[in-house]
Amino acid sequence: MPSFDERTFIAALRGIANHPAARGLGDDAAALEFGGETLILTHDVMVEGVHYLASQDMADVAWKLVATNLSDLAAMGAQPMGVLLGHMLGRDDAAFIEGLRQALTVFGVALLGGDTVGSGNENTPRAHGLTAIGRATHTPAPSRSGAQIGDIIWLSGPVGAAMMGFEAVRDATGEPSGAFRRPVPLLDEGRALAPHVTAMMDVSDGLLLDATRLAEASGVTLSLDRMAVPLSAPEARRDDALRWGDDYQLLVTIPRGVEPPIPMHAIGTVVAASDVPLLLDGQPPALGTSLGYEHGT
Amino acid sequence: MPSFDERTFIAALRGIANHPAARGLGDDAAALEFGGETLILTHDVMVEGVHYLASQDMADVAWKLVATNLSDLAAMGAQPMGVLLGHMLGRDDAAFIEGLRQALTVFGVALLGGDTVGSGNENTPRAHGLTAIGRATHTPAPSRSGAQIGDIIWLSGPVGAAMMGFEAVRDATGEPSGAFRRPVPLLDEGRALAPHVTAMMDVSDGLLLDATRLAEASGVTLSLDRMAVPLSAPEARRDDALRWGDDYQLLVTIPRGVEPPIPMHAIGTVVAASDVPLLLDGQPPALGTSLGYEHGT
Repeated sequence: MPSFDERTFIAALRGIANHPAARGLGDDAAALEFGGETLILTHDVMVEGVHYLASQDMADVAWKLVATNLSDLAAMGAQPMGVLLGHMLGRDDAAFIEGLRQALTVFGVALLGGDTVGSGNENTPRAHGLTAIGRATHTPAPSRSGAQIGDIIWLSGPVGAAMMGFEAVRDATGEPSGAFRRPVPLLDEGRALAPHVTAMMDVSDGLLLDATRLAEASGVTLSLDRMAVPLSAPEARRDDALRWGDDYQLLVTIPRGVEPPIPMHAIGTVVAASDVPLLLDGQPPALGTSLGYEHGT
Repeated sequence: MPSFDERTFIAALRGIANHPAARGLGDDAAALEFGGETLILTHDVMVEGVHYLASQDMADVAWKLVATNLSDLAAMGAQPMGVLLGHMLGRDDAAFIEGLRQALTVFGVALLGGDTVGSGNENTPRAHGLTAIGRATHTPAPSRSGAQIGDIIWLSGPVGAAMMGFEAVRDATGEPSGAFRRPVPLLDEGRALAPHVTAMMDVSDGLLLDATRLAEASGVTLSLDRMAVPLSAPEARRDDALRWGDDYQLLVTIPRGVEPPIPMHAIGTVVAASDVPLLLDGQPPALGTSLGYEHGT
């Protein structure tokens, strides 16, 4: 039988993910009622050569594995509690553990368990999985599907820094690269925003792609003002930065007239669904141009 | 920096897994207090060429991925609730999803979320991770560390069937192989046993190796009667079957004089710690002989 592409596989998974806690696999994390509270659960995988460069410091890889999962919890307004690690042994395992320890310490999260396996082959690209669990601080936990026509679209901060950092690492220029190597999940921000938003997600795969997903989940169109998006990159790279992932800003919609509880950047408005889920300065983004990285959720 | 072997890596992880819910990474799963109840959490990884044959039916691989994780919950006396899947795309993804659906349906468990990634390379051995979460039905949830001197050691059923099944698949003999391909986690048995045991674990890596781990966790020696271990293999293969994993029987210790609540096989007694954690017919198992598969926990 043929292998599936990611879209087809996830569509097939949706067919069996019929528990309400799975939220149709459409949100950044699952939300499961338990013991009178709500658990927030997410699992992300990083693959060498796909999600990180084979030349990267494994301490940075471990940090980022934790940070990306915690960013999914942030997007649900959750307080993280613990993680389980699925680790494939390989080069620089001591550095991996040190980066893991640093991230868990900084974000105040417990290592609860996991599994450690050999790759069976020294030349196999490695895969690292992490499950993060947290406690919802506001219920129902925010979803991607609640945006309402008329809402203002807000972004927590600039995009582009991770792109610049990636290029600095790839080309070994010595320019700052921390935004790419050591992203910081916006946990406090997510918790502050949760009670006020109609929809929330983290921007992991590119602002335009993730905005499209939020629009489709909500059954609306997101109309973005291209120049209103704050940038951490040269102005000439604006269009690249709008399509680049890994910045882990929070993208939210809030009813017009309601001020966000923390400093945010207004970047557009929610309008009635049209032929396209996304408008950029009133136009659909150019056909044939990738909107971002379709390598995960 | 050099890569670590599994023992070294896990020892280093233990140094940062200092939350009591992690139980020192010594049990089959973590046990986290939440909302007045106890969550049981486990994560296992299966790697092509290490944990399954590249020629195997991917429906069986998906089934086994679910079953092995649920077996860890069984060993903690937990009622499973849901799973998160970390899937690397590749051959026979439709079959994988069908096996996943079958296992989740049979065991009554929800697919809550996860991540789907490409391998970046068609020839890369694939890795599949699964996180299973459940609810403790008896607290404190059983551990490996509670065996007491004088306890009777009980096993839930025979070992060897998975070994015979593996050989049938490997050699394409057409002999029965279901025990290897489609193991069944002993969930009802685990819940029935939990209130009565001093220690419990599932036998995933071989009876002698796992009995050694239970002995070391409890600070005792396990004295096993070789001929008392029930066998699902030819008598000539007894010593192999005692070292083969994948049977997922439950190994427990119960105070002498207490009858197990379900049919079990008495296979030995707990004695005071000596130079060796395991005695087989009163002798240490032969030096230089592997006791089982050290490929996971």
